[in-house]
Amino acid sequence: MGDNRLRAAIERIVTEAENRPLLSAIDAAPRPQKKEIIEILRLLQEVIYPGFYGDAVLYRANLHDHLGDVLFHIHLRLAREIEKVLPREGDRDSSAVDLTTRFFEALPGIADLLAEDVRAAFDGDPAATGFDEIVLAYPGVKAVFTYRLAHALYDLGVPLIPRIMTEFAHLETGVDIHPGARIGRSFFIDHGTGTVIGETTDIGDRVKLYQGVTLGALSFPKNERGELIRGTKRHPTVMDDVVIYAGATILGGETVIGKGCVIGGSVWLTASVPPGTRVTLPNDQLRIETRAVSPAPVRSSK
Amino acid sequence: MGDNRLRAAIERIVTEAENRPLLSAIDAAPRPQKKEIIEILRLLQEVIYPGFYGDAVLYRANLHDHLGDVLFHIHLRLAREIEKVLPREGDRDSSAVDLTTRFFEALPGIADLLAEDVRAAFDGDPAATGFDEIVLAYPGVKAVFTYRLAHALYDLGVPLIPRIMTEFAHLETGVDIHPGARIGRSFFIDHGTGTVIGETTDIGDRVKLYQGVTLGALSFPKNERGELIRGTKRHPTVMDDVVIYAGATILGGETVIGKGCVIGGSVWLTASVPPGTRVTLPNDQLRIETRAVSPAPVRSSK
Amino acid sequence: MGDNRLRAAIERIVTEAENRPLLSAIDAAPRPQKKEIIEILRLLQEVIYPGFYGDAVLYRANLHDHLGDVLFHIHLRLAREIEKVLPREGDRDSSAVDLTTRFFEALPGIADLLAEDVRAAFDGDPAATGFDEIVLAYPGVKAVFTYRLAHALYDLGVPLIPRIMTEFAHLETGVDIHPGARIGRSFFIDHGTGTVIGETTDIGDRVKLYQGVTLGALSFPKNERGELIRGTKRHPTVMDDVVIYAGATILGGETVIGKGCVIGGSVWLTASVPPGTRVTLPNDQLRIETRAVSPAPVRSSK
Repeated sequence: MGDNRLRAAIERIVTEAENRPLLSAIDAAPRPQKKEIIEILRLLQEVIYPGFYGDAVLYRANLHDHLGDVLFHIHLRLAREIEKVLPREGDRDSSAVDLTTRFFEALPGIADLLAEDVRAAFDGDPAATGFDEIVLAYPGVKAVFTYRLAHALYDLGVPLIPRIMTEFAHLETGVDIHPGARIGRSFFIDHGTGTVIGETTDIGDRVKLYQGVTLGALSFPKNERGELIRGTKRHPTVMDDVVIYAGATILGGETVIGKGCVIGGSVWLTASVPPGTRVTLPNDQLRIETRAVSPAPVRSSK
Repeated sequence: MGDNRLRAAIERIVTEAENRPLLSAIDAAPRPQKKEIIEILRLLQEVIYPGFYGDAVLYRANLHDHLGDVLFHIHLRLAREIEKVLPREGDRDSSAVDLTTRFFEALPGIADLLAEDVRAAFDGDPAATGFDEIVLAYPGVKAVFTYRLAHALYDLGVPLIPRIMTEFAHLETGVDIHPGARIGRSFFIDHGTGTVIGETTDIGDRVKLYQGVTLGALSFPKNERGELIRGTKRHPTVMDDVVIYAGATILGGETVIGKGCVIGGSVWLTASVPPGTRVTLPNDQLRIETRAVSPAPVRSSK
Repeated sequence: MGDNRLRAAIERIVTEAENRPLLSAIDAAPRPQKKEIIEILRLLQEVIYPGFYGDAVLYRANLHDHLGDVLFHIHLRLAREIEKVLPREGDRDSSAVDLTTRFFEALPGIADLLAEDVRAAFDGDPAATGFDEIVLAYPGVKAVFTYRLAHALYDLGVPLIPRIMTEFAHLETGVDIHPGARIGRSFFIDHGTGTVIGETTDIGDRVKLYQGVTLGALSFPKNERGELIRGTKRHPTVMDDVVIYAGATILGGETVIGKGCVIGGSVWLTASVPPGTRVTLPNDQLRIETRAVSPAPVRSSK
């Protein structure tokens, strides 16, 4: 009897899965493979940080051929994934191969930006002992690495893949940067867990963020059918040389944080502030009650 | 001499491990295998989102047989893990096989809930470009997927395994939902990193949370021996159509957030609020100091 | 033509990689392998929690030999990684083998501390159903496990490897504890995502933290060349029996949180507080606006 119940349960699950269009992708065109995109990111890490990542120990003698070989394979594999997300032939402006080549042409510029980001991390964190530690162990630097690559694909009009890339970095590092955000040079996110940078955020040069910072949307305008309007500027603009401390939340597409501002921890801000402003939660608004020192909690002996 | 020191050190570590009852599980009954539970979740993902996950490219022609086969194996493997966590025979109400079949009977209802959750994500995030992106790349949606499956096992009285499931989702997504929480239809957590939903939380329909939201306990009553009392309602109740923004903390088992409330970012709330209330941290409590624009920080040339 | 463009793009990427000293580690001494360090942590987990982790089902009969064997291999592999990060021979005080043996001599003491941490988690969380669940599923406990091992290596003067260890725990658990921090007995971090404990933090005994707590630096003094001064006390001191709730931020090397204090959620604190103080964000500073209950949001039918 148990077998019959099980067979009936399985039959029902399968039948409903066949008839649930929202969650199934049956008979559809092939989708990009998450695993493959993660592997492409890993290979790009090897190319951009040669000697730090990858299994091969690299010597000057074999570096040239080795990296050339890796890049050739990245090109093949990335073009194959991009092919899956483009509109059907006839409705597309560029071929997947051409878009991948244009992405490759952007890579040296991205590597230069990343070198400046690594330096910004060293200049911005007194606990950093060297560039090695930053490249190997700083999650904010890893998230920005992934973002800069994803943003280049986003700028080329590649759908879905940039978002899968940054979402992988989000899972790994806790830093959620939408590939559509625009971020200037020498950018550093310290610690990073919980930091969110929305799709239409603009960030200038030499900006430093801490963990738990949100650059988010304030409200979502809807059209006359009650549907969200997509594509408007919904996230803040952060000018050059701004520092934003842990847990601050800054919302709204018209919110501009002026050059050189310092935003304190846990601040919740929905309006613009002029250049050079310091915004903090003052200590004197806290409720402070002194009481007798509590005894140590009860602990059973080990 | 170095070898002697090493041998002595190893001998001491092993001897102490043998005699430390708290941390060792020696001669105990077999424990559930974390890796196996994670693999079961992966297979359930393939069944619930056919075509999105899993290595097989699914066509309507082979879907029925393929999913049936996968489900049969999930049943075998999950029943084997549940067997390990049940009380010994004689002290249990149901067999592991029977509990697993009852879990299967709940799966179509769970899949329906998840379809509504995916739709709520699309309706709630202007950055979403389609259901594909939500299923493949939204961490909040992944966390809720795992929670809904774990909660069904929790409701069937299966110990430990639901918590291992949601804790895996926590590690992956940064969203920590206790399998005991009760959550209504069309639920969406955007971004999600740092969001915590405690064991005795009740959440209504069409609720939307952002990253860093805590629905937690306010205090832990103790019994006359100074031990925590377990099993009381310690976490808030959130009614239908509530929105809670990033970093808000809501605590306490008697705290009720009424229907349609909006709770602003970084708010810390330990009391109930009536339906339709908007609670925010006003900007005018911030300390705002304008100062001369600081020069760009010193940067060594590259 | 596409082929020529691709060849030119690859050539340019490789040439620039060869000439970008900051990001490449070519011809350099071998670096520690992240994967290998993660595997060493996994093996240490098996030694410290025998029976909970590891593939072997352990019985008292084979435990002694099995753990001894695992420890012997950990010693070999860890010494090999430490060798890579030490200064060249002549400039070092101890050999890699000797440092590894001294680390092994510290392990029984660390295991005792971890047993107290597990007990503190059970005593501190009413949702905990047993030690099993804590060892297998509590991310804060996993982060503290990794921290205590990394801190022992840090105390022995081993560079880089402790930071790679804690950063792996950070990626896995969202809890970022610098290996240089000093943390007392019976320490518990509940939920944990987003919690940051800086390099020069001092924490007493029986302290409990929640998710999103930052124990961070307030400002970074610079030398006359505008460079950060490294190595000063920059992070707070937290005395015995303190509880710090979700999202609180405590900053500064001179900030001392006295014995038995309770710091409320989302508090931002940059000054010392005397023993027994309770610091909270009062509810009455919130802006609370009642409005008509909004209708349920527009939802298309499924």
